[in-house]
Amino acid sequence: MKFTIERVSFLKLLSTVNVAIGQKSPTPAFLNFKLEINDNGLVVTGSDNDITIQSVLPFMKEDKEIISNYTEGSTLISAKYLIEIIRRLDSQLVTLEIIDDVIVQISDNKSHFQLNAMRSEEYPDLDLSVIGEKVSIKTEDFKKIISQTAFAASTREVRPILTAVNFKANEGSAEFVATDSYRLAKKIYEIDSSASFEANIPVKVLNEVSKLLEDNEIVLNIASNKVVFEFGNTKVFSRLINGDFPKTSRMIPSNYPFVLQINASRFIDAMQRVSLLAIERERIVKLSIDSDLVEISSKSEQIGSANEKIELFQYEGGRFDISFNVDYVIDAIKAAQSEDVVLSFAGEMNAFRVTSPVDETIVQIITPVRSYY
Amino acid sequence: MKFTIERVSFLKLLSTVNVAIGQKSPTPAFLNFKLEINDNGLVVTGSDNDITIQSVLPFMKEDKEIISNYTEGSTLISAKYLIEIIRRLDSQLVTLEIIDDVIVQISDNKSHFQLNAMRSEEYPDLDLSVIGEKVSIKTEDFKKIISQTAFAASTREVRPILTAVNFKANEGSAEFVATDSYRLAKKIYEIDSSASFEANIPVKVLNEVSKLLEDNEIVLNIASNKVVFEFGNTKVFSRLINGDFPKTSRMIPSNYPFVLQINASRFIDAMQRVSLLAIERERIVKLSIDSDLVEISSKSEQIGSANEKIELFQYEGGRFDISFNVDYVIDAIKAAQSEDVVLSFAGEMNAFRVTSPVDETIVQIITPVRSYY
Repeated sequence: MKFTIERVSFLKLLSTVNVAIGQKSPTPAFLNFKLEINDNGLVVTGSDNDITIQSVLPFMKEDKEIISNYTEGSTLISAKYLIEIIRRLDSQLVTLEIIDDVIVQISDNKSHFQLNAMRSEEYPDLDLSVIGEKVSIKTEDFKKIISQTAFAASTREVRPILTAVNFKANEGSAEFVATDSYRLAKKIYEIDSSASFEANIPVKVLNEVSKLLEDNEIVLNIASNKVVFEFGNTKVFSRLINGDFPKTSRMIPSNYPFVLQINASRFIDAMQRVSLLAIERERIVKLSIDSDLVEISSKSEQIGSANEKIELFQYEGGRFDISFNVDYVIDAIKAAQSEDVVLSFAGEMNAFRVTSPVDETIVQIITPVRSYY
Repeated sequence: MKFTIERVSFLKLLSTVNVAIGQKSPTPAFLNFKLEINDNGLVVTGSDNDITIQSVLPFMKEDKEIISNYTEGSTLISAKYLIEIIRRLDSQLVTLEIIDDVIVQISDNKSHFQLNAMRSEEYPDLDLSVIGEKVSIKTEDFKKIISQTAFAASTREVRPILTAVNFKANEGSAEFVATDSYRLAKKIYEIDSSASFEANIPVKVLNEVSKLLEDNEIVLNIASNKVVFEFGNTKVFSRLINGDFPKTSRMIPSNYPFVLQINASRFIDAMQRVSLLAIERERIVKLSIDSDLVEISSKSEQIGSANEKIELFQYEGGRFDISFNVDYVIDAIKAAQSEDVVLSFAGEMNAFRVTSPVDETIVQIITPVRSYY
């Protein structure tokens, strides 16, 4: 195998695939990129066994030659060192060549590197088939869905199912739900497919894919135990998380006698200030509402107390106090992505709802906490 | 004590003094700012017992009122919370008031904080006298001296004396020397004072002072066991480090038969690329020079090898190889702060010198390392 390649395109390709590669692995081959020159161009594969990314760089792009002087073949080469070398070179072109079975030379006009490599046969067999129900989503919409739901998933592995976003589709209507059992985010989205399925996709994969996206559209292929994301010349393969996602409809109250509409950024600023003293583990602040009053307060025996009143708001309901984790409420308000936000309360000890007054597709539910002052 | 203060000026004052305050302290009072309103304005003091910073904000600045509605008095208030609160408020003015012996209220139009405080009598007695030999240095020069020497000091407390910069003055000529025993940086500087002294100033303090400087001039007051830096309305007090600084003249060869002059940034870039594979503890690269060749190389059994030739250079001397810690050489070349740099070698196992061809006041000495290839 030998090829000369446009350095910046090569670096971008490697950076994409590198997202799948870990710092450590019980399988040393997984610390490498698999590079292969075949009829399609340069195919680069990276994996940590849970996530696999494969991306292709064609020989030509828009009549411009990207890869030249190539011969077919394949090799495994340290992801960490290859990406650093390609990043640091300052030439426009770089040449890679297997000069011995297990040595790859990387060079431009000035610098020469000889990296120890592995034979490509040593790479584990990976299932790279693209099967399952196909759903296309606009890139912009996909990023928005992920930003509105993913933060509510659990980051702890105690209950693995809660580290997934539950993606359900039925007759053209899809639902994305994430919950860490203290809060929940639910997004409704219409899809152009009559497919019916339910899949628990690891939130980590969704976040990574969302960051990588550049093209107009992403295609999800949902099979019984895996999902394949396709965008541009890249495919991302991930297992699904096994188990039943909790029946979240139970968490959502049906009746809200107390309804507050308020400016989102003004409310967030006030909560951030008042919560400066709420350093304990639960980051609790108290919200007190009445027809002529919205006040946020916090108190710590050791440090002191804080309070702030907000003057502009609309409220329906009687005098009402509730305490909550301030970070959960700030996350939920940001996810509403609207100028004003509506908080609907069922009672002082019931879960409450955060919605946008202009977008019915996104709903957030938060459990309150008990407060002792 | 009560005062209303221009918020941004207050935040700047607190940020300066906060540099002296640690995250933890066996003396709880040291986690506080000492605030005092007296005839001079607002005096804020912070200390971790090793370094003390005191800064004054006058009531008026250039005919503009900075502090108003004040009554005299003093208090101790948590540095961590006060600075966060003042940073997060978004009003132009903020009011502080002792509302009980040990409670301070901080408020603007919207937000109200009540912080638990301590009586100012609980602050330890600190020696804030300004004594010793006075030396004035232009701010610009002081920053340059520190950037050219401080990095060569040791960061390890095993030999505390090596964590100091040795500052010696005699009949108008001053010398700043730092060494970690593997490398040395020496700067000559003419001072406008006939004072004669020697002081070992902690490098940590010099770095912090250098970052805080804004005015045109800094005055150092060197006493037998302490140094006081004065600039603007701020004073920084630090102990000196006890002990004898090593006789560094021994480290410096007197005769250099091999002399290379080369472009600094081209040389640094090449070393950074070649050292990508030099991940071992000592970060060794090898420099090979001859009349028609400058080559940098590195080799790792596990990873591979790298080399790069540089074409433009001037060299006097015969064929010559030397190995060294690449980071030390890059630091030294950067400190020369010139387009070209001169490397002078005494022999393959002798310390070598890095200088600027246009500035004789800065000299760097580096010990080579043995290499096995």
